[in-house]
Amino acid sequence: MLKFYYAKGACSLASHIALEEAGATYEVERLDLKAGDQRKPAFLKINPKGRVPALLTDKGVLTENPVILGYVAQTFPDAKLAENDDSFAFGAMQSFNVFLATSVHVAFAHNSRPERYADGEEAAKAMRAKAPVALADYFGLIEDQFADGRPFVMGDRYTVADPYLFVFERWLERDGLGQRSDYPKIAAHHDLVAARPAVKAALAAEGDR
Amino acid sequence: MLKFYYAKGACSLASHIALEEAGATYEVERLDLKAGDQRKPAFLKINPKGRVPALLTDKGVLTENPVILGYVAQTFPDAKLAENDDSFAFGAMQSFNVFLATSVHVAFAHNSRPERYADGEEAAKAMRAKAPVALADYFGLIEDQFADGRPFVMGDRYTVADPYLFVFERWLERDGLGQRSDYPKIAAHHDLVAARPAVKAALAAEGDR
Repeated sequence: MLKFYYAKGACSLASHIALEEAGATYEVERLDLKAGDQRKPAFLKINPKGRVPALLTDKGVLTENPVILGYVAQTFPDAKLAENDDSFAFGAMQSFNVFLATSVHVAFAHNSRPERYADGEEAAKAMRAKAPVALADYFGLIEDQFADGRPFVMGDRYTVADPYLFVFERWLERDGLGQRSDYPKIAAHHDLVAARPAVKAALAAEGDR
Repeated sequence: MLKFYYAKGACSLASHIALEEAGATYEVERLDLKAGDQRKPAFLKINPKGRVPALLTDKGVLTENPVILGYVAQTFPDAKLAENDDSFAFGAMQSFNVFLATSVHVAFAHNSRPERYADGEEAAKAMRAKAPVALADYFGLIEDQFADGRPFVMGDRYTVADPYLFVFERWLERDGLGQRSDYPKIAAHHDLVAARPAVKAALAAEGDR
């Protein structure tokens, strides 16, 4: 039995949606990041990095969204959440997902968790000022990827890259770092993903609207 | 024919080593980051993000070290550079690689490229001061992973996680952000990896020692 560790409002929503899309049977454990659950010994035994998401499987724990997303796609092949049998196509999807993890999420974190990157209010202010500038670059690149009229990140078919992008499409406005309406194709993607039953189910399970 | 885009001294060394380990036939194109090659139109057509590494395949371009490393392992199975037939084991290796990409590399970048995260000399100074603190945490976690006496990141067998960690083992001292000798198991891992013919070949090809 899979066990999924997440926090409301965190990037773990992407993997939560993927589990719902896959029709997986899984338990959940919700962490309260403000209460510091991620730093308590019980969770550090699951993920010594003290971060969500984490997915406990029969063989051990997987961490990092791109990895959990890829694993769910591969182990629930009937859900067709990735091009599992094409190393290049799977890799291209993961190139996008790792870009979200290393660049887009990191830019958001400079606004929401500046203490991770530097101490002091002056530095925090400077990092918060830069976050929307970096995100404008990144969302511009993503908007370009939709220039050919594709509805989903990788083309005509929904993959696990879509719920991961969806998280940051939400954060852009939630964190006041940009407007989806500045990126019409991204805005349309957000609405398309938001309408999916699995997305609504994951959000409802997290008590997030 | 594969074509590999790299820069001397960049994290692309990890993927370069993997290509050598795989015995792949590939062309290389070396970018001069100080001259801004990564921002020139010719390269932005390959990778609009303007970053190395990038791997041009017959089907298109892959980017991000964890992705290229995984792709090389999967498409050169005889080289046994990953547990390609075990979704969990492959995912566990990628959890490590994505952690290097999202956390370890990002901490180094706050020292070497602070302008990516905030403007101004004060902020740069604060970020440079935090980088070794964050890296001490991360290298501590990695040292713990070797506590069971394993020679390689994932256990008894060398995988593509090893050359990727090797890059940051080198950077720790190159960038003056820590001492490998503070982490005896990591120091031993560095020496074990440095002795491999494929590693020497990639370093020689890059003109890096």
